Amino acid sequence: MTWTHHSLLDVDSLSREEMELLLDQAGHMEELLDRPIKKVPALRGKMVVNIFFEPSTRTRVSFELAEKLLGADAVNWSAAGSSTKKGETLRDTAWTLEAMGADAVVIRHGMPGAPWYLKSKLKRASVFNAGDGAHAHPTQALLDVYTLRKRLGSLDGRRVTIIGDVLHSRVVRSNVQAFTTLGASVVLSGPRTLMPREVEALPATYEPDPHRAVEGSDAVYLLRIQKERAEQGLFPSEDEYHRRYGADRELLARAKEGAFVMHPGPMNRGVEIASVLADGPESLILEQVRSGVAVRMALLYLCLGGGSGS
Amino acid sequence: MTWTHHSLLDVDSLSREEMELLLDQAGHMEELLDRPIKKVPALRGKMVVNIFFEPSTRTRVSFELAEKLLGADAVNWSAAGSSTKKGETLRDTAWTLEAMGADAVVIRHGMPGAPWYLKSKLKRASVFNAGDGAHAHPTQALLDVYTLRKRLGSLDGRRVTIIGDVLHSRVVRSNVQAFTTLGASVVLSGPRTLMPREVEALPATYEPDPHRAVEGSDAVYLLRIQKERAEQGLFPSEDEYHRRYGADRELLARAKEGAFVMHPGPMNRGVEIASVLADGPESLILEQVRSGVAVRMALLYLCLGGGSGS
Amino acid sequence: MTWTHHSLLDVDSLSREEMELLLDQAGHMEELLDRPIKKVPALRGKMVVNIFFEPSTRTRVSFELAEKLLGADAVNWSAAGSSTKKGETLRDTAWTLEAMGADAVVIRHGMPGAPWYLKSKLKRASVFNAGDGAHAHPTQALLDVYTLRKRLGSLDGRRVTIIGDVLHSRVVRSNVQAFTTLGASVVLSGPRTLMPREVEALPATYEPDPHRAVEGSDAVYLLRIQKERAEQGLFPSEDEYHRRYGADRELLARAKEGAFVMHPGPMNRGVEIASVLADGPESLILEQVRSGVAVRMALLYLCLGGGSGS
Repeated sequence: MTWTHHSLLDVDSLSREEMELLLDQAGHMEELLDRPIKKVPALRGKMVVNIFFEPSTRTRVSFELAEKLLGADAVNWSAAGSSTKKGETLRDTAWTLEAMGADAVVIRHGMPGAPWYLKSKLKRASVFNAGDGAHAHPTQALLDVYTLRKRLGSLDGRRVTIIGDVLHSRVVRSNVQAFTTLGASVVLSGPRTLMPREVEALPATYEPDPHRAVEGSDAVYLLRIQKERAEQGLFPSEDEYHRRYGADRELLARAKEGAFVMHPGPMNRGVEIASVLADGPESLILEQVRSGVAVRMALLYLCLGGGSGS
Repeated sequence: MTWTHHSLLDVDSLSREEMELLLDQAGHMEELLDRPIKKVPALRGKMVVNIFFEPSTRTRVSFELAEKLLGADAVNWSAAGSSTKKGETLRDTAWTLEAMGADAVVIRHGMPGAPWYLKSKLKRASVFNAGDGAHAHPTQALLDVYTLRKRLGSLDGRRVTIIGDVLHSRVVRSNVQAFTTLGASVVLSGPRTLMPREVEALPATYEPDPHRAVEGSDAVYLLRIQKERAEQGLFPSEDEYHRRYGADRELLARAKEGAFVMHPGPMNRGVEIASVLADGPESLILEQVRSGVAVRMALLYLCLGGGSGS
Repeated sequence: MTWTHHSLLDVDSLSREEMELLLDQAGHMEELLDRPIKKVPALRGKMVVNIFFEPSTRTRVSFELAEKLLGADAVNWSAAGSSTKKGETLRDTAWTLEAMGADAVVIRHGMPGAPWYLKSKLKRASVFNAGDGAHAHPTQALLDVYTLRKRLGSLDGRRVTIIGDVLHSRVVRSNVQAFTTLGASVVLSGPRTLMPREVEALPATYEPDPHRAVEGSDAVYLLRIQKERAEQGLFPSEDEYHRRYGADRELLARAKEGAFVMHPGPMNRGVEIASVLADGPESLILEQVRSGVAVRMALLYLCLGGGSGS
């Protein structure tokens, strides 16, 4: 089994074996994070451009740390004030980045499909999707499966319940894919108004009642609720949302004993998740953040040729 | 005498001996700045996150240079577009940074006490206060005492007069503390409307008339005046402020012969300070800027374990 | 022939021999860009501050890549939220940067002459003009002559036609200078309303009709057209501009056989340039981008003392 990918646009391009190879590599990377000197020169001389058309400090900083920990150089290209504002097409931006010698481009874009388009225009540079609209967010999905797999040993036959705003979520499609690829089943829950029309088409079960949805689950995964959705009339209020769908001790008690709590962050405490769960012993939320750096290191390492060399 | 601190929130946590140890270390660091290759690998592999909830290019750049000169990796987390905007609490931001592997966090925040709160939530990462509201700005105070001590040999028995907007100043509380710790006495001056109610509670004398306040002073330290304060009716106009409180040759002539002129920057020339003083032979203003890099290098070096190793 | 410059404000400070020395050095740098490990430690320990008072992501990223490829440390000082906003003068900003130990300052500023002013205030640090208003943009000019010279061997006796908004262009004055220094002649074209009053004073010919202007040209160089100019009444509309002045196959056919197409980017496709030309075999546009990194590397290397050492 060798790694043949050069880019990562979504998790569906990875076979189970490839995904496991990546997760194993992330395990090695995570060990580095505990060393006094965490930095390794595996990607020394590589130039990575982080181009964020939407702000996302967490994802950008996680990638930037991963790049620097591997000795690569990181350059941030923010959309504000960029050529994009001056009317340049994404195609020309892509060509510009490649012409400048970028070895890899990490892209966050509001438009679904933008990373694929970017990739199609680049000849040599790797492309990593850091989130395209509500479409895909593969590194989030990989860090999530990495985190839960580490705790459970294997995801085969496990059950994960994802509760919240599936409709607008950047992470849920990639996550359903990644969890099922590794043998877990996924149950989705949340108000019908926050579900996509094609919710039944996803490889997951939809159960509107969160209390029933979590039954038998090994992990309860909460999605971030944005205030604007209440203003749009998709649910009555944050308080009302919390009463009906928010995760608290009572909800978690319905899941399998020892079930874990996960959240992609940033959290709205008291809305989709009670603080008692966010900070409780079942919470993997900070482990997810830590895993994010390790998984992104592994991905960069495998895709940028570090894997073939040292 | 060994250095035991891991963070720096304010100067009152430092004994006189500790402060002098830090200043001596800054002296070594300043020598590095004159070398053709200024960079040393003392903090190689350390990850420092500069998180600025308020813009402050000078302080951020000074810290970033200090970090890079010591070989650390610097990542900038700006509040604009960050998770904070999405409603994340400072607590969750803190945990996120630590989970990502940050060895140190340099924080600037508008809310007094924010760095203490951040520190209380972090298990391992160092925290450096780069200014919290009008409360504390310890590295500014340290660079100020470093600069004046370098010129005077010792601050024992010396007198420093600080003139201006004490009420809103980010630097004055830490400065009074630092100067007095090293044996100097401090006189505050400026319009009563720009003094805090508890001005008498500070370990300093308040003398409203700047011409009397500077008598016998070894240094005259001007605070930045913001235009908005005139709009708020705290003083009549910038011109009027300059006539009554602005530092010029005439005012300096009332101080001790050879007295120095200091300012934390950025200056409003013609308001709190006349250009003839800002650029005159008594001005230490650019030395203060230079000292800032050296003092921050020393602080990072001592706190992040460089001191225990190489 | 040795390199004696320490800064670059505009191309008119370079003799033909010096310019050729720089371009030859850029050729060596470009070879580095093809290596698997592109980074060299030639400027290790040097601190370069990129201070952009106007946004220009392309130029900033190109400089930042050049700095990092040479092993220098790059610090970005953006005007938004900087001391400048607080009323600090450019003079004080300059002194601050030098006091902090910056070895070089790359400056973009809206005010013509700002880099000269900055240079006049600095004692040691190098200054590189990354564009000052519509005045000069020397590294753009150098990358342009580098790119065309590479294709043509020599620019002696060659003819370049520059079409578009000469009045507001940041690049055209430096470009006319650089092309003529290397022996080429320049023809300017575009609507009279987009020409400066002193167009006849430039060392170039003005020919309003682009079809006549390109006759005998070895390269057709298109300037970016900004929508705002139509709103200001300087030309009727983008469509109308494209019909009369936009570069397409028909226009290029009037130039010398094999003539190249150039553009400083970012392009407005369908306005000043048809996509068929932008992406055609005659287009040097992406080579220009690539050359930008190589030329900036060469400039930094020669000016910051790398040339005298390793």
